[in-house]
Amino acid sequence: MKRRKLRVGMVGGGGGGSFFGAPHRRAILMDNSAELTAGALRSDPAEALAAAEELFFERGYGSWSDLIAGEAARGDDDRIDYLTIVTPNDAHAGPAEAAAAVGIGVLCEKPLTITLDEARRLYAVVQDAEVPFVVAHTYTGYPMVMLARRFVRDGLIGEVRKIEAWYPQGWLASRREDEGSKQASWRVDPARAGVSGCGGDIGSHAYEFIRFVAGLRAVRVSARMKSVVPGRALDDDFAAFAELDNGAIATVSASQIDIGAENDNGFRVIGAAGTLQWRHARFARLEHFVADRPVAVYRAGADYGYVPESIRPYLRMPQGHPEGFHEALANLHRTIEWTVRGRRGEEAPRPFEHPGIVDGVAVMAFLEASVASAREGGAWVDVPFGG
Amino acid sequence: MKRRKLRVGMVGGGGGGSFFGAPHRRAILMDNSAELTAGALRSDPAEALAAAEELFFERGYGSWSDLIAGEAARGDDDRIDYLTIVTPNDAHAGPAEAAAAVGIGVLCEKPLTITLDEARRLYAVVQDAEVPFVVAHTYTGYPMVMLARRFVRDGLIGEVRKIEAWYPQGWLASRREDEGSKQASWRVDPARAGVSGCGGDIGSHAYEFIRFVAGLRAVRVSARMKSVVPGRALDDDFAAFAELDNGAIATVSASQIDIGAENDNGFRVIGAAGTLQWRHARFARLEHFVADRPVAVYRAGADYGYVPESIRPYLRMPQGHPEGFHEALANLHRTIEWTVRGRRGEEAPRPFEHPGIVDGVAVMAFLEASVASAREGGAWVDVPFGG
Amino acid sequence: MKRRKLRVGMVGGGGGGSFFGAPHRRAILMDNSAELTAGALRSDPAEALAAAEELFFERGYGSWSDLIAGEAARGDDDRIDYLTIVTPNDAHAGPAEAAAAVGIGVLCEKPLTITLDEARRLYAVVQDAEVPFVVAHTYTGYPMVMLARRFVRDGLIGEVRKIEAWYPQGWLASRREDEGSKQASWRVDPARAGVSGCGGDIGSHAYEFIRFVAGLRAVRVSARMKSVVPGRALDDDFAAFAELDNGAIATVSASQIDIGAENDNGFRVIGAAGTLQWRHARFARLEHFVADRPVAVYRAGADYGYVPESIRPYLRMPQGHPEGFHEALANLHRTIEWTVRGRRGEEAPRPFEHPGIVDGVAVMAFLEASVASAREGGAWVDVPFGG
Amino acid sequence: MKRRKLRVGMVGGGGGGSFFGAPHRRAILMDNSAELTAGALRSDPAEALAAAEELFFERGYGSWSDLIAGEAARGDDDRIDYLTIVTPNDAHAGPAEAAAAVGIGVLCEKPLTITLDEARRLYAVVQDAEVPFVVAHTYTGYPMVMLARRFVRDGLIGEVRKIEAWYPQGWLASRREDEGSKQASWRVDPARAGVSGCGGDIGSHAYEFIRFVAGLRAVRVSARMKSVVPGRALDDDFAAFAELDNGAIATVSASQIDIGAENDNGFRVIGAAGTLQWRHARFARLEHFVADRPVAVYRAGADYGYVPESIRPYLRMPQGHPEGFHEALANLHRTIEWTVRGRRGEEAPRPFEHPGIVDGVAVMAFLEASVASAREGGAWVDVPFGG
Repeated sequence: MKRRKLRVGMVGGGGGGSFFGAPHRRAILMDNSAELTAGALRSDPAEALAAAEELFFERGYGSWSDLIAGEAARGDDDRIDYLTIVTPNDAHAGPAEAAAAVGIGVLCEKPLTITLDEARRLYAVVQDAEVPFVVAHTYTGYPMVMLARRFVRDGLIGEVRKIEAWYPQGWLASRREDEGSKQASWRVDPARAGVSGCGGDIGSHAYEFIRFVAGLRAVRVSARMKSVVPGRALDDDFAAFAELDNGAIATVSASQIDIGAENDNGFRVIGAAGTLQWRHARFARLEHFVADRPVAVYRAGADYGYVPESIRPYLRMPQGHPEGFHEALANLHRTIEWTVRGRRGEEAPRPFEHPGIVDGVAVMAFLEASVASAREGGAWVDVPFGG
Repeated sequence: MKRRKLRVGMVGGGGGGSFFGAPHRRAILMDNSAELTAGALRSDPAEALAAAEELFFERGYGSWSDLIAGEAARGDDDRIDYLTIVTPNDAHAGPAEAAAAVGIGVLCEKPLTITLDEARRLYAVVQDAEVPFVVAHTYTGYPMVMLARRFVRDGLIGEVRKIEAWYPQGWLASRREDEGSKQASWRVDPARAGVSGCGGDIGSHAYEFIRFVAGLRAVRVSARMKSVVPGRALDDDFAAFAELDNGAIATVSASQIDIGAENDNGFRVIGAAGTLQWRHARFARLEHFVADRPVAVYRAGADYGYVPESIRPYLRMPQGHPEGFHEALANLHRTIEWTVRGRRGEEAPRPFEHPGIVDGVAVMAFLEASVASAREGGAWVDVPFGG
Repeated sequence: MKRRKLRVGMVGGGGGGSFFGAPHRRAILMDNSAELTAGALRSDPAEALAAAEELFFERGYGSWSDLIAGEAARGDDDRIDYLTIVTPNDAHAGPAEAAAAVGIGVLCEKPLTITLDEARRLYAVVQDAEVPFVVAHTYTGYPMVMLARRFVRDGLIGEVRKIEAWYPQGWLASRREDEGSKQASWRVDPARAGVSGCGGDIGSHAYEFIRFVAGLRAVRVSARMKSVVPGRALDDDFAAFAELDNGAIATVSASQIDIGAENDNGFRVIGAAGTLQWRHARFARLEHFVADRPVAVYRAGADYGYVPESIRPYLRMPQGHPEGFHEALANLHRTIEWTVRGRRGEEAPRPFEHPGIVDGVAVMAFLEASVASAREGGAWVDVPFGG
Repeated sequence: MKRRKLRVGMVGGGGGGSFFGAPHRRAILMDNSAELTAGALRSDPAEALAAAEELFFERGYGSWSDLIAGEAARGDDDRIDYLTIVTPNDAHAGPAEAAAAVGIGVLCEKPLTITLDEARRLYAVVQDAEVPFVVAHTYTGYPMVMLARRFVRDGLIGEVRKIEAWYPQGWLASRREDEGSKQASWRVDPARAGVSGCGGDIGSHAYEFIRFVAGLRAVRVSARMKSVVPGRALDDDFAAFAELDNGAIATVSASQIDIGAENDNGFRVIGAAGTLQWRHARFARLEHFVADRPVAVYRAGADYGYVPESIRPYLRMPQGHPEGFHEALANLHRTIEWTVRGRRGEEAPRPFEHPGIVDGVAVMAFLEASVASAREGGAWVDVPFGG
């Protein structure tokens, strides 16, 4: 029997100034295994309906609550299989919670919410509903990042001693928010972005590298946050020291005022027996260092024998055909898709352990502890369990 | 009025061992502007129909001739808008000619055909039918390659003096054709691949860089072709000197036995006033050298002010979000899509000057002259007009 | 009249396990403008005399005090022109102070001393004696680092907002000090290395980048220092946040347990109008980023027109002839040599503003403040003036 | 007993416009094991004497013949141990032959002579005199190039199938010879440079990589040489296909009109079991590729365990301290020095197999065959034994 395409819903991402709606749609469509079924793509109901029509969604809704209600009313063989949430941070929890409550899985943009409390409430619902949940830490979708996780797990570098994780950008080095940039406007607004600007938007990715790649979490944090560009309410530069649960140390740094920096995020995980490094600017490579040995450079490609079976299905092409940002994002959609299919008994590759609801909460815990630390001049602040 | 999705047909690309069917489908689907309408995806009719069903094509056909006939019989508001041809080289000309003859545009894999004669016949039909025609020199779809073309045209490096173009691979360094690799099998078979193995498969891309980026063509060629791995009928290593129509010199080199090489194709165009270099391994960068000046490194990103209006629509994302192979291929589909839409009076960006039927013929002329030269030990052989 | 070679003295650097004696001798000799005149190369008097003989010093001494006394007794036309100090940290101040007191200039290894108090005493003597004094922050001898300083001074990147400076190594990831490594032994010993191990040995270089390149200094510091490898008295991993005197923020990080890291120290200086980055692994390049412009990569070479006159004499070769670590070190010797010659009225290029006694004291102030901060869990500690 | 410094002579290299005199002097002096003893540094006798005085040579001579005669007249314990020849190409054979004839070893700049006949005569004398002889293919002095040779010898990449060797420059892209550049003037003059300009000056280095690294030689060559810049008698762009003695193929390319190219010479040696690549721009790295394995990147450093004993003495510093062009050149001086010392029974490391007189002749044979081929439009021409 023919496998059907998955039905995907989307909240947000339909405005002219939207940044991540289009890449999510590409990620959903590119693998010919899912379709755009239901959309509540803008906050204005009329615009939302028009956008859904314009963007070829099968069903348009005027609001996310309509969407959830409408889909919930449909039968299992008709309603959406999961919901993609691409709204600004303050509008994640609402639709996520509502979707989970009616048994619909969620792929949600990061950071999960605007406060830790909100994240915890969402967590409770999601746990209760037992729905699949993926947080869009897109960089964990790069196969070489996944390979790094595999290697650390397999003990390739021994006990982890230190981690550096970073995410530099330069696009907010001037007051873009005054120039009509919608992307800039909500990101510098505490009401919409949450407790942290730079830390929340991209420091969150850097911190998640620590959790995802090394399987560790911060227990204490000492953070410095600064609004470098005058007149901003939120940080546009973020740096934190962290103590991890195995006693290792970590630095998490992120900036939005680093002119010329082009999202070259990455990590360096230093163990007692070796080091692993990955950086976005050379996303198809993973470097492995061992004392007194040549550097081993692993390169991406579905045909490389060293790619483990757990990662191979996430590579579409053999070596030498770079799969970039869209494919990384599409890999997160693969994970929720394969989870959904697997639960139904359909044949599907085993989904990888991509960031889920626990990571979403943990990142919020890390952010709130960082904000508390920064307010006290960098005093060490405990990160609640889950951080 | 809502813009409809383009209807795309596909010939070939449906087998389990097919390499390029899937990336073309991703390229077609990812931008949410086209759909898989008609497919004749395998040579066996029953398998072809099953594959079309399996891969969500709206209409399956048992053969390409059925497809052309079936689509031709439909009205303008229903039949496919263009045909993608992803078969081995010997099966390009048939469907391409048939499609053109009934007024359907074509995006065809390279090299265009297996002989120059065949290419010329196809050219005549396409010219006569005045249908859009794109040859899938995928690397010309990378925006930084397009920018290089723009820069040369704008005189940035002065008169071109020398061009180096290259394409190294290592996957045929051992006898993959004996290990059940379908990709290897047809590529080493003269009946299916044509007059040249390595030269045709990837030397063609290198040569096209000369035409596309510099707007020049070979008038004479001195080539060396070798079957390094014993027992092969076709070349697995290719190198040529060429004299270009403006008097400049060029080298075109390609290899399939270069172990460790991962499609790091590229070009270096040397002018009297500067040099431009691009390489696939760093596809998001274009380097510009001028004597006694710092190197200028242009990076890809829709938000960079130096990206000209003719190229901007081909960039989906702002800086720092790498768009790789699939997006480059999708850009060729954009070109034919926008050509089709433009001709119908729909609003669409101006299509870029991607390789078309003339380039397809020219590459075949270059290949046949190269083969003739190599047979005579590298004697200089004229490349017929169009080379 | 023929210019004579400068007469150079050396204290330390003659033992079998000595690391920096040999590179200093190469740096002194390579430019054919100076000679090895007087040496007290080891702590044991007999070995010191033997080493001086073995290493072709004109005059051997049994101790640094003998050397200073002996040279002081000679006439101006015979005694050494400056003294190079290559001993472990605890043996810098003695010979440096003695040399200065008798009017002999000094090129001293870093960090200047083992305590700030010691540094201040030395400063007083040097100021009083008005002798030339250079601290061997070798990386400031790389012409592209010098060019970065020039560019910041010239306002190329506007007001500095943030600086990242780093120095990673991996050689102390295991207990080398137990394996008979002399280099390791004294560096992990507080009595010989001073208040900080990793911070003093290499964090000092990173911090000096901030002073040298940006002309800024830390006013407050929050530091984290850790002995990662069990059983060490001093830090082998160091990280600090600093607040600079113009209000900018900085991070200074250094590690000796970062397996695979090969001294790839460097800096990223982020201004309101652009960014400059240099890293040791690509020492012949300086990258300049400006929003919405291609990256400008300046490359080293005496023939490049963009090299200012103040730097050109420090480049020995035209472009494409990499001058590495020895030449960088030799450039510091050039600075003291040209200072000496200039003061005598000999013709010599104008010496560059390489790190001197003030920098030496400032680095010690930074280190002591960092230690104090680290002891209090990263509390912010003021850096005394001079930091 | 104390080892004495070696006494080194030099012919040429003393003029204001001289390029290679100074680096050779640095190479001789930097290791504190040799001294500048006898110099005939300019063609005008008075200037030659003045230059020797100015540059601290112990003995000045008015001409190379005076130098040879003068030194020959001295006793073994006084005369120079070897002669460095840094003149333009037409003035190599004279002093080299004379020195050899009186039993003095020679380190000679490349190419060896201006004709193959001249090279053969010199070869006969050198063979007869059994003196040490090194040809200054400086790039073979880089330890990672030496390691490549070792690896190929040890069978790491299996039978060599193909070699690419290259040397691009851009400094003659305009008529520097009209702007008073001495370096340019003699290099474009057949009387001084010999049969080939670009091929002789730098193509020679590229070809020597094939001999040195792979231990192979050209048996046939098909070459293209061009004077791109109008009005030149000699080639400023060179490219050749070669057939090697084991049946492998090779390309040798060199250019002087490649704007922006900074001596990024290198090689890629492709075997049946792997590939080795080195390039000057990343001189401290050697890359080793094996199918289906991570790339192994070997880095330079005296402390790396994988550096064989035959190469270790040529590394002065541990990892992370880049030794560049001067050290590579100094390594060739080490080879002749250690050969001289070894022959005398002094303790010295075993000299490496750096290019000698046979290589010098072989390169000339390759060049003359290339010129003959280029004159006949690239016809295949046999390279005489020795090529």
